[in-house]
Amino acid sequence: MSLKDLSQDQFTELAERTRQQYEELKARNLNLDLTRGKPSSEQLDFSNALLSLPGEGDYKDKTGADVRNYGNLEGIADIRELWAEALGIAPENLIAGDSSSLNIMFDLISYAYIWGTNDSERPWKDEETVKWLCPVPGYDRHFAITEHFGFEMVQVPMTPDGPDVDAVEELVKDPQVKGMWTVPIFGNPTGITFGPEVVEKLAAMETAAPDFRIIWDNAYAIHTLTEDQVDNPNVLALAERHGHANRFWYMSSTSKITHAGSGVAFFASSKENLDWYTSHASIRGIGPNKENQLAHARLLGDVQGLHTLMQKHAGSLAPKFDAVIGILHDRLGEYGVAEWTEPKGGYFISLDVTDGSATRVWELAKDAGITLTKAGASFPHGVDETDTNIRLAPSLPPLDEVRTAMDGVATCVLLACVEAAEANAK
Amino acid sequence: MSLKDLSQDQFTELAERTRQQYEELKARNLNLDLTRGKPSSEQLDFSNALLSLPGEGDYKDKTGADVRNYGNLEGIADIRELWAEALGIAPENLIAGDSSSLNIMFDLISYAYIWGTNDSERPWKDEETVKWLCPVPGYDRHFAITEHFGFEMVQVPMTPDGPDVDAVEELVKDPQVKGMWTVPIFGNPTGITFGPEVVEKLAAMETAAPDFRIIWDNAYAIHTLTEDQVDNPNVLALAERHGHANRFWYMSSTSKITHAGSGVAFFASSKENLDWYTSHASIRGIGPNKENQLAHARLLGDVQGLHTLMQKHAGSLAPKFDAVIGILHDRLGEYGVAEWTEPKGGYFISLDVTDGSATRVWELAKDAGITLTKAGASFPHGVDETDTNIRLAPSLPPLDEVRTAMDGVATCVLLACVEAAEANAK
Repeated sequence: MSLKDLSQDQFTELAERTRQQYEELKARNLNLDLTRGKPSSEQLDFSNALLSLPGEGDYKDKTGADVRNYGNLEGIADIRELWAEALGIAPENLIAGDSSSLNIMFDLISYAYIWGTNDSERPWKDEETVKWLCPVPGYDRHFAITEHFGFEMVQVPMTPDGPDVDAVEELVKDPQVKGMWTVPIFGNPTGITFGPEVVEKLAAMETAAPDFRIIWDNAYAIHTLTEDQVDNPNVLALAERHGHANRFWYMSSTSKITHAGSGVAFFASSKENLDWYTSHASIRGIGPNKENQLAHARLLGDVQGLHTLMQKHAGSLAPKFDAVIGILHDRLGEYGVAEWTEPKGGYFISLDVTDGSATRVWELAKDAGITLTKAGASFPHGVDETDTNIRLAPSLPPLDEVRTAMDGVATCVLLACVEAAEANAK
Repeated sequence: MSLKDLSQDQFTELAERTRQQYEELKARNLNLDLTRGKPSSEQLDFSNALLSLPGEGDYKDKTGADVRNYGNLEGIADIRELWAEALGIAPENLIAGDSSSLNIMFDLISYAYIWGTNDSERPWKDEETVKWLCPVPGYDRHFAITEHFGFEMVQVPMTPDGPDVDAVEELVKDPQVKGMWTVPIFGNPTGITFGPEVVEKLAAMETAAPDFRIIWDNAYAIHTLTEDQVDNPNVLALAERHGHANRFWYMSSTSKITHAGSGVAFFASSKENLDWYTSHASIRGIGPNKENQLAHARLLGDVQGLHTLMQKHAGSLAPKFDAVIGILHDRLGEYGVAEWTEPKGGYFISLDVTDGSATRVWELAKDAGITLTKAGASFPHGVDETDTNIRLAPSLPPLDEVRTAMDGVATCVLLACVEAAEANAK
C-alpha cells in the first residue's frame, strides 16, 4: 500500500497522526546529529594505545633509521609494507604521509593545476576548461576541491554496481575531461561497491586526455559491517596491463580505523606518478610525521591485527546501521515514499525521498533538533536537482540516539510527503 | 700576517705542510657530514617523553574536545596559547598545524599563486612576473620554493643587522615585487638577528604591490646558544600600527625544539590573512594532528618548560659551535683567507672563503670524506656568483666528529687558497 493508494479518509488519518507525532517530536527538544561520518568515542577507544605509542625507547624503523629526525618523504617501511599487504599492492607503489588523504588529493590536483601531471601537454591552469567526472551522489569534500579549482563538474549517475560506466566511456572522449572522483568500496554516501566489470572498464577505457586520472579514494577498503571482507582489486596492476599504468591515483588512510584526526594517509600509484608527486612534494617539505607512522605499525602489528580491529568497528557500527534500516523499513516501508541503501560496509546510508522533498525533510528535522547533512550535500555545488537525496551518518551518536533520531527522521519524511500530497491536491 | 704577506719561502713551506696535512686527512678515510641543520640524537633524547605522550587516558583538550576525532582546523587551544605566549603574540593570531612550517609556506604561496591573496588584484599566476626578495646568503629550501613557482628571485645582501633595508625599500617600489623571504632571528645560515631599525622599516615601508608579503620564518626564535634570550618583536602588531596589518606571514615550529620530523608548526598573521588561509586550507582538509599537539602541550607544560628545554639544547650545541669557531680561528685566523660568523643562536655558521674558492673547498672536503653543504646552496638557484660562501651545520655529529671535520675543513680552505695563489702566480 503506497501513499497514493490511500483513501481520502486514510490519508486524513495518516496526516493527522503524523502531525501529532511531529509535535511530540519537537516537544522532546532533542539535540541529535547525523551529519558527518565521524567515528564514535567507543570506536576511538579501540585504538587508545596510540596515545602512548610508539613508547619511550622505540624510535627506530625497521631499517634502523631514527624516526625522530628529519627525512624520508616516502614514509617508513614498517607501515608501508603492512598497508601494501592489506590493500594487495606492491609496497614500492605506496607512500605513507601525514594524517589526511584529502590533503594529498588536494595537493595532487594543485600540482597538476600549476605544473601539469607527468602526462600533461600543459598545466591544467592553462587549459581552456578542465572537466571532472563526478558520480552522484558522492563525497561532498571531493566536489568541494574540484569546485575550488573551478573545474566543470560533470555528473555521472550511480548504478548498483558503481558509476554508469557506459556514460563514463562516452564522456572521456572529450579531451578536456581530465579526471574522475571515485569511492570504489562502500562508497560515500551510497555504500555501493564497484563491480568487477566497472573496475575493468575504468582501467581499460581509452581516454582522449593523455593525462586523465581517476582518484581512487579507497577510504572504506576494509570497513566491513559483516564478517566478510570485500575484494580490493589491484587497479594499479590492472591499469598497467591495459597500457594505462598512470591512470589511478589511489588513496587510503587509517582515519576511520584508528583515530580520525591523527592517522596515517597513503598514496599509491605507478612509479612514474609517485616520482612526479615527490618532485613537487619534496619542495613542499622534508617528510611526514614518522613517529606517528611507527606508532601505527606498533598498534596494528600486522594485517591480521588490522582485520581484528576492523571487526571491533563492525561490532560497534552494524547495530546502528541495522537500527537505521529497520526503522526506515518499519515506519516508511508501507507507504512507498522513500528508498534507501542497505550497505554491508562503510559509514553512510543514502536515503532518497519523494522528488522535491529532501530540503523540507531537512528543515523539519532541524526544527525538531535533529541535524541532518544538508540536502544536496552529496552533489556538486550542493545542488541536487531533484531534491531527493539525504545522506545519513549513524556512526557518531550512541545506538539509542541513532534510534531516536531515525524515528524522528521517519516522521519528518512522512510529514514532508503529506504536505506535498496536500499541496498537489489543491 | 695574511697569506699575501708571506715570503716565497714561507709560502712554499705552508703549501708543503698543507698538502701533507691534506694527504694525512684523506688517509683517515673519514665519513663525516656537516650538511644539514639536523638535531643530534642527544638533542632528540631531551624530548623522548613525546614517544609515549599524551598518554593513554589523555585525549581531551582544554575546551573538553576529543582530540582523537576529526575537526578543529586552527589547532587546539592548549598549544596555541602556550606558543603565542612564547612568541609574544595574541593566541587568536596564531594557528597550529601539522609538523612542518615549510609545508605551510609552500601552501601560502601556492594559494596566492592560484587564487591570489586577500589583497591581490589577481592571482599571482596571472601576473606577468612575480619578483621575490631573497636576502643572501639565505635558506636553500626557501629559494627552492620560489624557484619552483618560477618567481624571479632578486638578491638582497645581508648586513650584520639583517637585509640591506635601504635596498629593500627601493626594490618594493616595483609592483611586481610580491614578497620576501626572511629568517629574522639567528638566521640560516648567517646566524644574524635583524636589528630593531630593520624590523621597523620592514613593517613601515610602503610597497607598490598591495599584496606584498614578508614570510617571517622565525625558525630560531628561542634557539639561543647562551643564557640570554633574544627579543622577539611582535611584527604583527608593529605592521598593524603602520597600517600594514596583512604584511607578515609569520612562521614558527617545534622542529628544532622537540623531534625534528614530528613536531607542530605554527602560522601567525592578521585575522584577515588567517581567514584567507583557512578559506583554502579548509578545502584541503579537515584539521591537523591534534594528538601530537596535545602531546607537545603536555611535554612542554608552559613557557618556562620550553625555555628549560632550550637551555638543554644550548648545552649540547654551544660546545660544537665553540669548536667550529675555535678551530677556524686557530687554523685560519693568521692567514686572512676566510671570515665566519660567530652566532649566539641558531643552527649554522656561515663561512666565507677567498673569492672563487668555495667550490674547490667543497670538492677537497668531499674527497677527504667530509660532506659539506654544496657551495652556493645558500643562494637562489644554488649559484653564489663569487663562489665564496659555505654553510656549516655542526649540530648533528658528536663533538669529537665536529672537531675532526672542522680541522679537515680548515686544511681544505688553506689548500684551496694555496692552489689559487699558485695559479695566480703563473
